[in-house]
Amino acid sequence: MSVTAAAGFTAAGVTAGLKSAGRDLALVVNIGPQRHAAAVFTSNRVAAAPVLWSRQAVSDGRADAVVLNSGGANACTGPEGFADTHHTAERVAQALDISAQDVLVCSTGLIGERLDMGALLPAVDAAAAALTDDDGAAAAAAEAIRTTDTVSKTAQSGGTGFVVGGMAKGAGMLAPGMATMLAVLTTDAVITQPDLDAALREAVRVSFNRADSDGCMSTNDTVVALASGAHPDADASGVDLREFQAALTEVCRDLAAQLIADAEGAHHEIAITTIHAANEDEAETAGRAVARSNLFKTAIFGRDPNWGRILSAVGTTDVAFDPGTIDVAVNGVWICRGGGIGEDRSLVDLSGRQVEITIDLKSGDAEATILTNDLTHDYVHENSAYSS
Amino acid sequence: MSVTAAAGFTAAGVTAGLKSAGRDLALVVNIGPQRHAAAVFTSNRVAAAPVLWSRQAVSDGRADAVVLNSGGANACTGPEGFADTHHTAERVAQALDISAQDVLVCSTGLIGERLDMGALLPAVDAAAAALTDDDGAAAAAAEAIRTTDTVSKTAQSGGTGFVVGGMAKGAGMLAPGMATMLAVLTTDAVITQPDLDAALREAVRVSFNRADSDGCMSTNDTVVALASGAHPDADASGVDLREFQAALTEVCRDLAAQLIADAEGAHHEIAITTIHAANEDEAETAGRAVARSNLFKTAIFGRDPNWGRILSAVGTTDVAFDPGTIDVAVNGVWICRGGGIGEDRSLVDLSGRQVEITIDLKSGDAEATILTNDLTHDYVHENSAYSS
Repeated sequence: MSVTAAAGFTAAGVTAGLKSAGRDLALVVNIGPQRHAAAVFTSNRVAAAPVLWSRQAVSDGRADAVVLNSGGANACTGPEGFADTHHTAERVAQALDISAQDVLVCSTGLIGERLDMGALLPAVDAAAAALTDDDGAAAAAAEAIRTTDTVSKTAQSGGTGFVVGGMAKGAGMLAPGMATMLAVLTTDAVITQPDLDAALREAVRVSFNRADSDGCMSTNDTVVALASGAHPDADASGVDLREFQAALTEVCRDLAAQLIADAEGAHHEIAITTIHAANEDEAETAGRAVARSNLFKTAIFGRDPNWGRILSAVGTTDVAFDPGTIDVAVNGVWICRGGGIGEDRSLVDLSGRQVEITIDLKSGDAEATILTNDLTHDYVHENSAYSS
Repeated sequence: MSVTAAAGFTAAGVTAGLKSAGRDLALVVNIGPQRHAAAVFTSNRVAAAPVLWSRQAVSDGRADAVVLNSGGANACTGPEGFADTHHTAERVAQALDISAQDVLVCSTGLIGERLDMGALLPAVDAAAAALTDDDGAAAAAAEAIRTTDTVSKTAQSGGTGFVVGGMAKGAGMLAPGMATMLAVLTTDAVITQPDLDAALREAVRVSFNRADSDGCMSTNDTVVALASGAHPDADASGVDLREFQAALTEVCRDLAAQLIADAEGAHHEIAITTIHAANEDEAETAGRAVARSNLFKTAIFGRDPNWGRILSAVGTTDVAFDPGTIDVAVNGVWICRGGGIGEDRSLVDLSGRQVEITIDLKSGDAEATILTNDLTHDYVHENSAYSS
């Protein structure tokens, strides 16, 4: 499973002591023969030191290793924080006998505090010594990147002559720009770097970028894809790109759904599907406006099918729709018809965790689904006490 | 005080029975000699029936009366809901012997339900019969427009030859587009309708439109200004427009601050002032991004001066600033300097209700203040139980 499911990868997860308890440093290594890499990063202009480093390091399309830590975001830490990231990459390079420029760094945790490098650097050596391709090592790596995540997130798919595996973390400050949270995807596909890059961007667009838990974009979001070309049955001329795209997208969607399901304080997982939009962007815009409405999100927490809050959110956007013809269904009951009162709202059952909202804009043929969750007492509790 | 402080106005607040308890229908009448009116409305495309009606009715610059009800927003109610608004205006016109086209209608409450016209129409007659210019009538009117507001909001100012008074309501779904919530402003100034209109738009821009409680824009927001020209010491050539603008803006700012102070579940009133912005719009954009961050708002609830959440919110905008030079102060302590760690965060005292955030963008000379509040358990509780 996860990042060692594809051939050509090793991983490790160890305890550095950056967090109060548990594993907090992960290492994923591509042992080749190919070492193609692609990545998407947060579009937040306040980008963390590891984002600034990794953006540069991956720009040549190659990465041999990714080192990830929880227990500190290393964001808003100035030149000293950037030097900490640089030292981390150098230590990985030294331990693996590779170039620091081929080491990507990801960090997650509290913003505005320096990392304890005295704890982190020895843990890099320990992780390098523990690298294996077995499932336990991949599980330990997935565990080591958790912050407020209550469970590890891993996924796997594949096709003819390739496997795709991945791990991700993220439970709060969870809304996409270019990408959201941390995720490492590995594949043994024989694929060119430009094809890998294009496939990653498309997969992220329709998966992580449509997960919006709390509308807050992180300073550290990073999604990395590594390709080794090591699959035993690989066709040297390369994988079928459509099949590869489908598998990569499947893994990203699986991980994105796991993130939303474990979002801080969530009692409901909500899928907002906008149909008959003029285009895919407008379908996404309408769904995201609803996903970011605190009034909608508290209503779902209270099991209240308050469709007026859905319409008032869509009404703030500039997408094509007529307020007099829009329909809205909650868990299959069309309680808003023609912009007004539809079926009996008491028919809606919101007792389960899964909630499906369908918004029919009647303006075209496009659709998109945004994943979000409700706004609960547990969210307020967790985020009012996070750093204190 | 309030809407009858200026000469030339009468008011009433009565109980129609639209709400479970208390007054719920208000009437404000301009008895002249002038009957200039200006209004700004929600920019939400899902606009309520009374907004559609009043937008048209005020388009000639004249209004003789405003009738307002709580206990139902009359939004998303289709042609039947529009007919209800029309009937309400006709009933007011009949009772006062004026034209229905000179009656503005405002409604507030739950979206997606018809008003009980059998209760509302007789209450119009009762309100018309109760009209007086005394303070008690104005207080009753201010009380009658409350929904989840825990207190009435009124304000007053004035200048040479004029008085400005006002009342407002709004505690949730409180974020501006062109205007937010319901407010009626009255003045006895001698002023032309175009000058009144321009003064209202400017006052709303820097007051109600900078109050953003929960980022959710209402379907019913309406701010109305009425001018009677009835001040006993009025100069027939008109008021000093600068003095009038200052007084009108003061009343609007006072009411906006009262709205934020009484926002649903708020434990802290937060003023986010962005300084040294490239222009006023960018100062507003930066402040609003912070005001809409649930992570920032829960941190303040938890008395946690989490400046990383402020920077990450500003970083999502496109305003001019350098992430390496930005400074942030919380209650006067510059805990973020140069985009990194500044003064000791333990020096920040968040035990009081008033919180002042200062964001120094170092990109120009403009500034703006956005008013908001924290995100609390009480907000979640109140909004998960509102309609059920």
